[in-house]
Amino acid sequence: MKTALLYEGKAKQIYATNNPNHVVMYYKDDATAFNGIKKSVISEKGRLNAAITHELFTYLMANGIPTHFIEQLNEREQLCQSVQIFPLEVIIRNIATGSLTKRLAIVEGTRFTQPIFELCYKNDELGDPLINDDHAIVLGLITAEQLATVKMLTLKINELLQARFDALDIDLVDFKIEFGVTPTGAIVLADEISPDSCRFWEKTTAKKLDKDRFRQDLGAVTQAYEEILARLLA
Amino acid sequence: MKTALLYEGKAKQIYATNNPNHVVMYYKDDATAFNGIKKSVISEKGRLNAAITHELFTYLMANGIPTHFIEQLNEREQLCQSVQIFPLEVIIRNIATGSLTKRLAIVEGTRFTQPIFELCYKNDELGDPLINDDHAIVLGLITAEQLATVKMLTLKINELLQARFDALDIDLVDFKIEFGVTPTGAIVLADEISPDSCRFWEKTTAKKLDKDRFRQDLGAVTQAYEEILARLLA
Repeated sequence: MKTALLYEGKAKQIYATNNPNHVVMYYKDDATAFNGIKKSVISEKGRLNAAITHELFTYLMANGIPTHFIEQLNEREQLCQSVQIFPLEVIIRNIATGSLTKRLAIVEGTRFTQPIFELCYKNDELGDPLINDDHAIVLGLITAEQLATVKMLTLKINELLQARFDALDIDLVDFKIEFGVTPTGAIVLADEISPDSCRFWEKTTAKKLDKDRFRQDLGAVTQAYEEILARLLA
Repeated sequence: MKTALLYEGKAKQIYATNNPNHVVMYYKDDATAFNGIKKSVISEKGRLNAAITHELFTYLMANGIPTHFIEQLNEREQLCQSVQIFPLEVIIRNIATGSLTKRLAIVEGTRFTQPIFELCYKNDELGDPLINDDHAIVLGLITAEQLATVKMLTLKINELLQARFDALDIDLVDFKIEFGVTPTGAIVLADEISPDSCRFWEKTTAKKLDKDRFRQDLGAVTQAYEEILARLLA
C-alpha cells in the first residue's frame, strides 16, 4: 500500500500511497527528549502509541472534532489524509509542570484556574521557542482566521480529553497537538495523541504515566504506555 | 512637595506627596542594560527623558489616551497620579531588531505587515520572560478585561506615535510601555516614553537615536536623546 518515504520524524515515518490525498503514518519505537539530545528505543512504543492515538482520535471524531485519521491498517500503521502541517506546537496546560514552572516560577502541580493555551514555533534550530499569536501570524505560519479555528478546536479537545481521562482516574496535565490543512482548506487535527505528547498523572498516586518516565529515567516506560492503553480499552 | 521615597528603579525614583493620590516621578541619569549587567551614567539623560515624556504624554492625552501625567514640576520631576502598575512590559514591534531577530531568525530591519504586540513578565529574577495572554491572566498579573483595554490602548498609542515620528523623519522601530490602575479602577498609561524605552531610527540614514547607542557602545548617546527632543519641539 505505501510507496515512497516522504518524511521521517523523531517518532514516526510518513509514506506516500497510490492515492495522492492519502498517506501512511508508521509509528517507530524511537524516543528522543530535550530537543534530540537524549535518544533511545522504547520497546513496543510504536504499537502502543498507534493504538492509543487510534482510540483517542476515534473518540474525538465521534464528538465532532475533524481529524486526518482514516483507518488503522495494522499495529503500527494508520491511513490518513495528506495534510499540510502548520509548523506550530499547539499546547494546553491544565496543571503546572516541566519548563513552565522554571520559566515563570510557578509551583509544580499548581492547577490552573483556566487552561493555558500556548504556541511554540516548530523549529529545531531555534529550539521550538514559545511565541504568541501575533508572531505566528506575522511569520506567516498561520492566518488569524485559521488560528481562531485551531484555538477553538484545541479548547474543545482539551474538554473532551479531560472528561475521558478523569473517568479513568488520570489527570491530563498538559499536551501538545498539531493541526494541518487539507487540500480543500479544512483544518484538521493531525499527528498523534499519546504518552509521547501528553502528560498523564494517576490521580490517586500522582504516578507519571507518560514520556517523563523516559525523560527523568524513572523506569517502567513501556508499562506506563501499556497502562494508558489498557485503561482506555477497559 | 515630595516626601518619602516610595520606590527606586533603574532610571527613576517615585516619591510620595502630601496628597495620597499623587506621586512625584524623578528622572535619573543612571542607565542600565542587559537586565542590569551593564551600568553607567548618561549625562543629562534624566532631564531629556522627562522633557520627551512630557511632550509625548501631552500629545497622547490630547488624542484621547488616558495617562497618569498631571504636571511637569521642574526639569526632572513630574507630578503623576498614584497608580498600581501591572507587572507587565507591554511591547510593540513595527520593525525587527534586537532579541526577536535571534529568537525567531527574522532578518534585522524587516518591516512587519502588522504591529507585533508582546507581553513580558516584569520579573528581574526570571529575566523578564516573554509570556502570552493566558499566562498573564492565570498568573493574576491582569484580568482578561483589563488586558483587552491595554491592548486596544497600546495599538492606538502605536498609531499616534508612528504618525508623530514619521513626520520627523524617524522610524518608530519598537517600544515598551507600562500601564497602571488608578484607585477608581481606570487603566492609564504610566511610566515614560523616551529613547530609553523606544527604538528610533532616522529614516534617511538608519542612524540609531536611542538607548542602543549605549547598549552597543556607539557613542554620542546624549546627543541622540537631544536630537529626539529637538525634533519633537521644532
